Amino acid sequence: MGAEASPAGWPLDDRGVAYGDGLFETVLVRDGVPCLWESHLARLARGCRVLGMPMPAKHDLERPLAQAGQGLAVLKLIVTRGSGGRGYAPPAVPAPRLRWQLSPFVPDATRWKAGVRVRHCRLRLGLQPVLAGLKHLNRLENVLARSEWSDADTAEGLLCDAEDRLVEATCMNLFWQRGGRLETPRLERCGVAGTLRAVLLERLPIAEVDAAPGVLASAEAVWLGNSVQGVWPVTRLDGAGGEALQRWTLGAVHRRLQAVAHEALGYPTRLDD
Amino acid sequence: MGAEASPAGWPLDDRGVAYGDGLFETVLVRDGVPCLWESHLARLARGCRVLGMPMPAKHDLERPLAQAGQGLAVLKLIVTRGSGGRGYAPPAVPAPRLRWQLSPFVPDATRWKAGVRVRHCRLRLGLQPVLAGLKHLNRLENVLARSEWSDADTAEGLLCDAEDRLVEATCMNLFWQRGGRLETPRLERCGVAGTLRAVLLERLPIAEVDAAPGVLASAEAVWLGNSVQGVWPVTRLDGAGGEALQRWTLGAVHRRLQAVAHEALGYPTRLDD
Repeated sequence: MGAEASPAGWPLDDRGVAYGDGLFETVLVRDGVPCLWESHLARLARGCRVLGMPMPAKHDLERPLAQAGQGLAVLKLIVTRGSGGRGYAPPAVPAPRLRWQLSPFVPDATRWKAGVRVRHCRLRLGLQPVLAGLKHLNRLENVLARSEWSDADTAEGLLCDAEDRLVEATCMNLFWQRGGRLETPRLERCGVAGTLRAVLLERLPIAEVDAAPGVLASAEAVWLGNSVQGVWPVTRLDGAGGEALQRWTLGAVHRRLQAVAHEALGYPTRLDD
Repeated sequence: MGAEASPAGWPLDDRGVAYGDGLFETVLVRDGVPCLWESHLARLARGCRVLGMPMPAKHDLERPLAQAGQGLAVLKLIVTRGSGGRGYAPPAVPAPRLRWQLSPFVPDATRWKAGVRVRHCRLRLGLQPVLAGLKHLNRLENVLARSEWSDADTAEGLLCDAEDRLVEATCMNLFWQRGGRLETPRLERCGVAGTLRAVLLERLPIAEVDAAPGVLASAEAVWLGNSVQGVWPVTRLDGAGGEALQRWTLGAVHRRLQAVAHEALGYPTRLDD
């Protein structure tokens, strides 16, 4: 399968580009079947409610799947509030616009197996409880955070909020275990509530906590995960200047959460072979 | 002049719609000449520096002016980081994309003369010092705030930040006078630093302050202004539920700041006739 996309681009007056007035979902597709589809639909529906937009029809959201063919692909769906005049006021009659891109995808099995190096970002996420958790189109903070490093050895950057609590990585959620207890940051003030995170919260006893970055110093294991890449164990954490702060040796504890996540995504669950 | 626009819309993979990864300017144009043009260019240049994008060439930004013809128009310029792959990392070789729309414009002289009714918004602006002051494309907060009312009698909504300091209105800057002293909110943590605001700060002794909304209770005059609409005196302030909080009778004090602003924009400076 080559890359496929909905035919048209965006009109000049689309509110998606004018204001980031919309939402997106990035979905792993295997043999034409979307993974964690109900979770993606639920988050999109919640976003539409918060933004005051009608939710696109499910059959419109599923239409691109017919072109996915066999194998793995990533479906990116973008829903905007549609065209609008100059000015922030939403149109009285909403006419959302849906566009999509479908791309072949190969996950990084090396990162699954050997783990990844991550660094702290300098940027702090602003607190905005109204938008917290949503996968909306206002992502300049993520873009700026991801601009903080360019070396290929660093897989991700960890983000704290304006009050120095851990939140997430630039495009993945964050999990850790300390004292045998699984934890992940609460996402009620900022951050994106990932669909894989939702599944892990259902299947494992993970506590949602407020935690300073220093909590990772006492963690037995740290992971990053999302619904496309699966779960990467963290083997090295660097400071924002690139200096090594901490290292972890992969062990059985790392593989347990990873296996639960990968089972949900149809990815390999035995990664020490 | 009818509405004119750059020929193409936005490609499907433009980072403007994907992430709001870009900036805009809305410029008053009179007889083909852009008002406060150097201030608009300065803010755009600052935004490009913060986002790490090259600034478009001045002659490209000025090209649409040839189509403006006689009379008043509004030129909206949008600059995005251009196309990008999936993922937040900016492309190694930046290729920004510039699009524009030019629309005929008639300012609201009734609002200049009779003043406006405004209300407090419930939404609180998140604090993000890195992006504060910029006219970037992440404007969901403004969209949500502007959705809080739909009656035509309410001209604007006042926004406070997460720590309950006055910041701005949804698309205008805020000024007031108390004890004979002109003040406007500091915009170092959030908000858009308007070009008309920049001109007024140069020409009048206006102090940039941190102020709770209660400060307006002791104001002799309150104004909203931007570089397209000019300055609207505020005659009535409502709470977020629409209940009247305060009224002002227009007087000579209102006309002074308005006259300085309108002189800069080429708008009428004597509004009591």
